[in-house]
Amino acid sequence: MEYELLPLISSPQDLRTLNDEQLEKLASEIREALCQIVETKPAHFASNLGVVELCLALHLVFDFSRDRLLWDTGHQIYPHKLITGRFPQFLSIRDRGGLMGFPNPRESPYDLFMTGHAGSSVSTVLGMKTADDLLGESDRKSVAVIGDGALPSGVVFEAFNNAAGLNKDLLVILNDNKMGICPRVGGLAEYLDKARVAPFYNGLKRDVAWVLNKLPMVGDSTVKGISTFKDAVKTLLHGGMLFEQLGFRYIGPIDGHDLRSLRKHLEMVKDIKGPTLLHVFTDKGKGFQPACEDPVKFHSPSPFERTPEGFAIPRVQGKSVSYTEIASETIYRQMKQDEKVVVLTAAMCAGNNLEKVRDELPDRFFDTGICEAHAVAFAAGMAKSGMKPIVDIYSTFLQRSFDHIFQEVALQNLPVTFCMDRAGLCGPDGPTHHGVFDNTYMRAFPNITVMAPGDSQDLEAMIPFAVNHDGPVSIRYPKTTAEVVPRDTSFAPIEYGKSEVISWGNDVAIVCFGGLLSECLKAADKLSKDGIDIGLINARFLRPLDTDVILKAIRSCEVVITVEENTLCGGFGSTVLECANDAGLSTQNVRRLGIPDRFIEHGDRATLLAELGLNASGFIRVVREMLEWQSSDSPVAS
Amino acid sequence: MEYELLPLISSPQDLRTLNDEQLEKLASEIREALCQIVETKPAHFASNLGVVELCLALHLVFDFSRDRLLWDTGHQIYPHKLITGRFPQFLSIRDRGGLMGFPNPRESPYDLFMTGHAGSSVSTVLGMKTADDLLGESDRKSVAVIGDGALPSGVVFEAFNNAAGLNKDLLVILNDNKMGICPRVGGLAEYLDKARVAPFYNGLKRDVAWVLNKLPMVGDSTVKGISTFKDAVKTLLHGGMLFEQLGFRYIGPIDGHDLRSLRKHLEMVKDIKGPTLLHVFTDKGKGFQPACEDPVKFHSPSPFERTPEGFAIPRVQGKSVSYTEIASETIYRQMKQDEKVVVLTAAMCAGNNLEKVRDELPDRFFDTGICEAHAVAFAAGMAKSGMKPIVDIYSTFLQRSFDHIFQEVALQNLPVTFCMDRAGLCGPDGPTHHGVFDNTYMRAFPNITVMAPGDSQDLEAMIPFAVNHDGPVSIRYPKTTAEVVPRDTSFAPIEYGKSEVISWGNDVAIVCFGGLLSECLKAADKLSKDGIDIGLINARFLRPLDTDVILKAIRSCEVVITVEENTLCGGFGSTVLECANDAGLSTQNVRRLGIPDRFIEHGDRATLLAELGLNASGFIRVVREMLEWQSSDSPVAS
Repeated sequence: MEYELLPLISSPQDLRTLNDEQLEKLASEIREALCQIVETKPAHFASNLGVVELCLALHLVFDFSRDRLLWDTGHQIYPHKLITGRFPQFLSIRDRGGLMGFPNPRESPYDLFMTGHAGSSVSTVLGMKTADDLLGESDRKSVAVIGDGALPSGVVFEAFNNAAGLNKDLLVILNDNKMGICPRVGGLAEYLDKARVAPFYNGLKRDVAWVLNKLPMVGDSTVKGISTFKDAVKTLLHGGMLFEQLGFRYIGPIDGHDLRSLRKHLEMVKDIKGPTLLHVFTDKGKGFQPACEDPVKFHSPSPFERTPEGFAIPRVQGKSVSYTEIASETIYRQMKQDEKVVVLTAAMCAGNNLEKVRDELPDRFFDTGICEAHAVAFAAGMAKSGMKPIVDIYSTFLQRSFDHIFQEVALQNLPVTFCMDRAGLCGPDGPTHHGVFDNTYMRAFPNITVMAPGDSQDLEAMIPFAVNHDGPVSIRYPKTTAEVVPRDTSFAPIEYGKSEVISWGNDVAIVCFGGLLSECLKAADKLSKDGIDIGLINARFLRPLDTDVILKAIRSCEVVITVEENTLCGGFGSTVLECANDAGLSTQNVRRLGIPDRFIEHGDRATLLAELGLNASGFIRVVREMLEWQSSDSPVAS
Repeated sequence: MEYELLPLISSPQDLRTLNDEQLEKLASEIREALCQIVETKPAHFASNLGVVELCLALHLVFDFSRDRLLWDTGHQIYPHKLITGRFPQFLSIRDRGGLMGFPNPRESPYDLFMTGHAGSSVSTVLGMKTADDLLGESDRKSVAVIGDGALPSGVVFEAFNNAAGLNKDLLVILNDNKMGICPRVGGLAEYLDKARVAPFYNGLKRDVAWVLNKLPMVGDSTVKGISTFKDAVKTLLHGGMLFEQLGFRYIGPIDGHDLRSLRKHLEMVKDIKGPTLLHVFTDKGKGFQPACEDPVKFHSPSPFERTPEGFAIPRVQGKSVSYTEIASETIYRQMKQDEKVVVLTAAMCAGNNLEKVRDELPDRFFDTGICEAHAVAFAAGMAKSGMKPIVDIYSTFLQRSFDHIFQEVALQNLPVTFCMDRAGLCGPDGPTHHGVFDNTYMRAFPNITVMAPGDSQDLEAMIPFAVNHDGPVSIRYPKTTAEVVPRDTSFAPIEYGKSEVISWGNDVAIVCFGGLLSECLKAADKLSKDGIDIGLINARFLRPLDTDVILKAIRSCEVVITVEENTLCGGFGSTVLECANDAGLSTQNVRRLGIPDRFIEHGDRATLLAELGLNASGFIRVVREMLEWQSSDSPVAS
């Protein structure tokens, strides 16, 4: 398809020059651009297909150069990017140096917050609106678009509660496509299912008033007068009762692919006073049949080829196995062996590769929805009753549960296993998804055993170990191919608080905590060939740290480098420094390698790691520098 | 009053031997015991007075030696403690070595979780129930009692959503006393206010069925059949619609001080299938008139004397000023000077001493309820629009916002000021309230400037500094008297990233981050008198660390000790180690003092600090040890 209209849209103002037919054509071109992306790289897809008309309507009705718009989570931001001047760079999306796959204020003033974690849009938009009012800029409208997947997230409810209390002019658009990444779950899901078949309700005009005329007078004493009864009936015949109970005005549901209807209803709600929810139905994958049929697969699909008939044929991919797959397979085996093991995911059944567990062991599989805080407290309750829960949540999303890790798990010392997937740089998703803080936050609280596998064998051994440990354990592993690190001797079984000495060197020790072990091995092999007596320690445990081995290395080696895919602020390297300090050792021969104290952009994980010196050649460079430095006089007094 | 019945109650089973009159007498004795406590020490009071009958009824109807009971938050656990065998130790409550003021599984099998943070009871009870079912112990009933203050907390909503989805036999008792610590706020508060005047609704018997017979057939096409209509009407005439929409069965409201009625209704709901909410009205302060009249003041009052007429006369107290008061006064002044400054509290208006701000500057005062996650994201929104928000939340409760500190504040680099009250040991409240992790968690994320005042002058200067800094800043201060540390020279104004050298010594440097500065000064004075050339550095900043001064101290002094009231895992001391390591320095002369890697029990703050060596005599001891150690040969090879 030739792009005729998209190149002409340099800002949303340009949309206003288009007639209905042209807008329809533009929608097609946007969908074409979306398809073009996923033919070449993994990207968020089905959700973007679903919001094309909604995005156009919003930009037609509001002026977001001044009004406030937040797309919750932000993975559905692509159409918005395409019509806010970023079509020319669009093919660069998710590449290093290219556009982000999420909103990015540095790219455009139309992107207000860099996001990626779900549910906070209502809070931030409410904050902007409240401040705009205080600043005398009440004319600025405020809109949050939130999916039904993000809706159950507790912070949304907190924001609704506050918005109703403050009675701010706030528009929340519920983009209801019946899905998170996976099908939605929970009481709210059932509620929304019922709302699907309810008639349109106009909270503005309250046009169900006719019903009242058909009702008889009811005089019984349990009915406190006809007006209460009438008020109640007003909210009776529609699907928005829940929101009206919370203090929102509810309007909907409406068809999210009918541009005219969307514009009409947005014009209608634009100037409503007080918090309002507009309920919009969209089809995830709209406009590309395979995505409509399997929106889970096409949420963020692997690259595929389109056929003239509109099918999607996956492009040939390597048969590499990821840490995620190793973890889920190990969890599955563990659950088959031990009936006390249960697994929890927070709306990431697909991302965590848990479909087999869900389908074969449904009684012990729990999807809480995007409710990480609840998931952890819920798991703690299960542990208290004697089960062995595994909480399978990405490192970055587990941040939502920080306080429940503290109170419900660590403080009670309950045997909950945290499988922290995507720990480390998460690649093209960027800073909201990089899981580079958990070494620091998991060790803040007492009682938690903090582990990371050096390779896939480690991970396979660590999960059963953790599940059978009488106390909380966290295990972190990156989003990458699971390698097997070759050992000269046999694989050392996991032993509490013990590292694995893969090799011992008298000059240099590399102490690696986690998935960069194979890169460390490459470095060690190369340096060893160059005649350096170098050893490699697979730390396995951050807490308890294997002080025997690590202090021995610090005492005896000229150079010790610690390696982790985590911020250097308070991470594994700092743990090593603390431990050496407690033992009265100098650490002048220790160099800590990890993520520096700044947010890391998006891009291919290997590229990012290379830029940060976190690969074999980086390690080699540091060891050489250190050896030179050690052999010369110290440049600083000690 | 003589205790006649309480001494006879060694377990809830003993309640069953009492007749109605005796139970009434027991309730009086429980209230007497509660009054006795608050005559001698600060303790949670009004909320405990309010749940006496509810507690008795629960233990009469259920058998919590097997059934599961959680009191959300746990501050209202006193009556429960009194009738589960802890009357003999009751006067020891909140003392070091005595009973905890919150549930404690180590005290009694009737206490299932040690809690103190609000809102997680529904999640943990749901977890226990789910596990009990899997373990074939479905006969175990599960009950969570949650106040309307905790109800808006997002995790409660997440738990409701999951409970409805799982359809578990779970009883949630909504203890509705119209209050958190302060009066409740938000849309939910308004909803519950309306529910107050709604008639009793029995979700079990559905006895509003009679209404249906009075309704006409409605044939219009917008009404999808009479059954939908009937279903809707069923939930029409009562205050529980919100919960029924979420998938709970609602029963209530009932009088929470009518023991017979409570027992009757608990018997009724005991065997209901599926998640059920029983709505109970209680009066906070019931049975002690002054507490009923001012439940805010009597939530956790200062010790008072009762008069024969039933008045409460405060016992004479010192006129010391707390850090909380310094902070709130400084915030107030800042708000008066600068119209862009706003302040947010999460239901802690009284605890944060913000009443004056609330009353005089209501437009710029925001109480979000116990919704810390939302509060932070909301503040970020306000900052984005150009305001200067101060988030005034206790260190331990701010843990709830960890992910929003990450995404909404740090990642966007927005100028939000965190005033973290109660940072450090919180005294009698114990481990759920000690704020001893924030040095670690606040520095995990890039962009945040991390500060702590050494005394009240510092705090007064830091708040304006932070508010005008273009980026996020956190300020931590303890729950104690705000002292003024005397300086030989004049008070050094706050300068970005700069410490204050209070004195310089060539032998020893004490580097203190935060409120232990005055104890450090005492130690330095004493050691100085003993002829040791000792200096004291008021660090002020953890990030950016004042590397010039601190590295100079490490280079030139024989002994450097770092002092903080935070876990030693990744805290200020570790930051110093990291910084020295980056600079290639040895840190063998550095000793880090702080909170060890275990949970610290409740008790008087000074006592706890002394036990941990975190006072002047502890510092003196360490300096002496270190000097001796430094002057002899190193006991370990380096």
